[in-house]
Amino acid sequence: MVFKTEKFQINTNSMGFYQDLEHLDGMGVSAVSANLYENKKRDDLVIFYFRKGANCASVYTQSNIKSENIKWNMNNSKEKIFALLVNTRNANAFTGKDGYKSISNIASLLSDLLSKKQIYDEEEPKKIKTKNLLFASTGTIGETFPENKISKAIPSLINNIKYIQNKYVWIKAAMGILTTDTKPKISMEECKIAGTPIKIYGLAKGSGMIHPDMATTLGFVFTDAKISGKILKQLLKKNIQNTFNAITCDGDTSTNDMVSIFSTSYAGNKDIKSFKDKALNEFDRSLNNVLRNLAKSVAADGEGASKFVTIKVEKCKKEEDAKKICFAIANSPLVKTAIAGEDPNWGRIIMAVGKSKVKINTNKLNLNIGPHKIIENGKISPSYQEDKVAENMRSNEIKINIQIGSGSKEFEVYTMDLTKKYIEINTDYRS
Amino acid sequence: MVFKTEKFQINTNSMGFYQDLEHLDGMGVSAVSANLYENKKRDDLVIFYFRKGANCASVYTQSNIKSENIKWNMNNSKEKIFALLVNTRNANAFTGKDGYKSISNIASLLSDLLSKKQIYDEEEPKKIKTKNLLFASTGTIGETFPENKISKAIPSLINNIKYIQNKYVWIKAAMGILTTDTKPKISMEECKIAGTPIKIYGLAKGSGMIHPDMATTLGFVFTDAKISGKILKQLLKKNIQNTFNAITCDGDTSTNDMVSIFSTSYAGNKDIKSFKDKALNEFDRSLNNVLRNLAKSVAADGEGASKFVTIKVEKCKKEEDAKKICFAIANSPLVKTAIAGEDPNWGRIIMAVGKSKVKINTNKLNLNIGPHKIIENGKISPSYQEDKVAENMRSNEIKINIQIGSGSKEFEVYTMDLTKKYIEINTDYRS
Repeated sequence: MVFKTEKFQINTNSMGFYQDLEHLDGMGVSAVSANLYENKKRDDLVIFYFRKGANCASVYTQSNIKSENIKWNMNNSKEKIFALLVNTRNANAFTGKDGYKSISNIASLLSDLLSKKQIYDEEEPKKIKTKNLLFASTGTIGETFPENKISKAIPSLINNIKYIQNKYVWIKAAMGILTTDTKPKISMEECKIAGTPIKIYGLAKGSGMIHPDMATTLGFVFTDAKISGKILKQLLKKNIQNTFNAITCDGDTSTNDMVSIFSTSYAGNKDIKSFKDKALNEFDRSLNNVLRNLAKSVAADGEGASKFVTIKVEKCKKEEDAKKICFAIANSPLVKTAIAGEDPNWGRIIMAVGKSKVKINTNKLNLNIGPHKIIENGKISPSYQEDKVAENMRSNEIKINIQIGSGSKEFEVYTMDLTKKYIEINTDYRS
Repeated sequence: MVFKTEKFQINTNSMGFYQDLEHLDGMGVSAVSANLYENKKRDDLVIFYFRKGANCASVYTQSNIKSENIKWNMNNSKEKIFALLVNTRNANAFTGKDGYKSISNIASLLSDLLSKKQIYDEEEPKKIKTKNLLFASTGTIGETFPENKISKAIPSLINNIKYIQNKYVWIKAAMGILTTDTKPKISMEECKIAGTPIKIYGLAKGSGMIHPDMATTLGFVFTDAKISGKILKQLLKKNIQNTFNAITCDGDTSTNDMVSIFSTSYAGNKDIKSFKDKALNEFDRSLNNVLRNLAKSVAADGEGASKFVTIKVEKCKKEEDAKKICFAIANSPLVKTAIAGEDPNWGRIIMAVGKSKVKINTNKLNLNIGPHKIIENGKISPSYQEDKVAENMRSNEIKINIQIGSGSKEFEVYTMDLTKKYIEINTDYRS
């Protein structure tokens, strides 16, 4: 049986919602508390270990101020990756040379301990270099990086690496990378490459400072497929565009954004020589599904979210224009508060279309909320009933659909409403 | 005695705060209720009447969806202006041909009644054409324009035109143009043109959908100076840049933005042939002060504001870059909520600097909040004490100062914090 990603659903109270990730060959996972959150007893340090190294590709934030771990990754991690270390609570951003030095020190310790330790009995000794390591950080910007706390926790982190993963191991890891998120974000799909069954597993964290710019937030995808780093990079770049780069929570772009894909190659599929190899088609689609579900989870769990919102702009001359209009709507505080208030104040959507600066002919404009026609060819639809739309907006999934009528291109963006809870979370001293 | 604009202050409970506007020769003012707000008894229709016509210049929203009154003004109002009619509650935007027709009908009625009526005994009969009229609308987008209610109220509006204005007449007019604003916005300054005393009086409204784009929100400036429409246009374009185009509340741009200046010429100053005439220098500075104070009032009274925020970016290579950084900070919900929470979480300011995409050398960056140094040359200042900055942030005026260290250009932007109150106002069904 081959698992497909389930239809994306929001608001579930049971663990049943999460897709059950199981074992993925060639890797180990561990999560511990390095006491980064002081008195809160929660995991805050997670390692993903690749037994024989993994091919890897990453996309990073486009912010002009990048965190020290991102700089370190860009300078170092060009070879096979043996481990990804993720810490939360501290972004290691705007920490200067000291922050960078901390990463170097931790990398030395990690490479040393991982090289020495035979995690599995049958393992051959190996030399893991610092440049075989990758780092992700998330949390407050500008605070001194807690190098000592992290270094102290690394031995127990390594001792706890589980070679055989089950859903609880994955959920523990997914919880360990969160900050103000309320739910772990997990997605998986199985597919085939030229007949060989392949697993694609993904984890993400999001919540605040979420606006797409190359890679938004943290997302990690693991696969047992045998695919080179070069082809992984092409696949990731292509599929990030309409997944992680199609979400926004608050229009703010983090210094730490990072999405990576790791392939352990344990599935032993046939060699893939080119990104265009048709044997990759199914994998390509499945990867898109996994990334899209993770991205949707991030938007749905945006700080203070009470409603998940899908904005689709169709029949545009250029995809770029459709995207601009989508984000003008998705980042408008007035549209987002109207959605929170369940108020079909569609004039605010029109305002946002206007401020996008995309040239449109209003006489060709159509606007729907859910199944309800509001604007048809620039005029209020004869079938428009405000109370019906208001009723539709009481749901926790809102769909806004706009047709521009100037071409055939489209784009879809995912976001959430803007609530008092968002303000509460972010006005709390050092949330 | 020549009045200068007072130092801009926020939070005042008494009327004493408002500068007292008195009589300005050559114009009349009237405000009535056309019952546009149904049961709320408040003025919602205001006329500014210019006895012998006024030279006039306006700047309008850059949104690609413009309200019908803005379209009408752009098509018609190219000659001397005899009256400006302002209605609130309904934006007359996305109302199509019907909305445009309503303006035409109201213009016919107004021109007819104003031509017939001798408001002052000594007045000669005159022919006021529809193209001598200007219209401003603000309120909800997409609702049918209440032409009948407005037409019905126009006779009493005209009957109530006061030729001699005092501060109460101006405050009544300033209140009549508000929507969700909590305070009227009034500013004045007196100056001289080649020895002749000149008055510059200004009113504005703001509150939501406030982000600068040519002209933000509604602003009206009246002067008795004798200055041609052409020179008024040059003065307005120049002075709008660092006043109304330097404020933001929520990053949303209205379909109805409009700032106009009217000169009655009654002061009888010497003829001004060129925008570069040195006799205009004092007027130019005073106009800038009036526009700036109005713009600051709009930011300080942004929906839900509890703090007025000034963001100054200095020592930049290009003014354009300084402006980009200012607005990246001023429009960041995370910075604005940290300010509401009185939390010196300066990492969020750094995040916003990064997302502005302006290339900077972080080793040259300085950041101050109020008088407190936080970052010096890219490092935390040795004198930084978080509790001191937290104390400073309890004030209702916050000053953020950033030095980029790449040149000598600067820009200053005014905004406010993002509070629960903003969400309350905007989630209220049809606020």
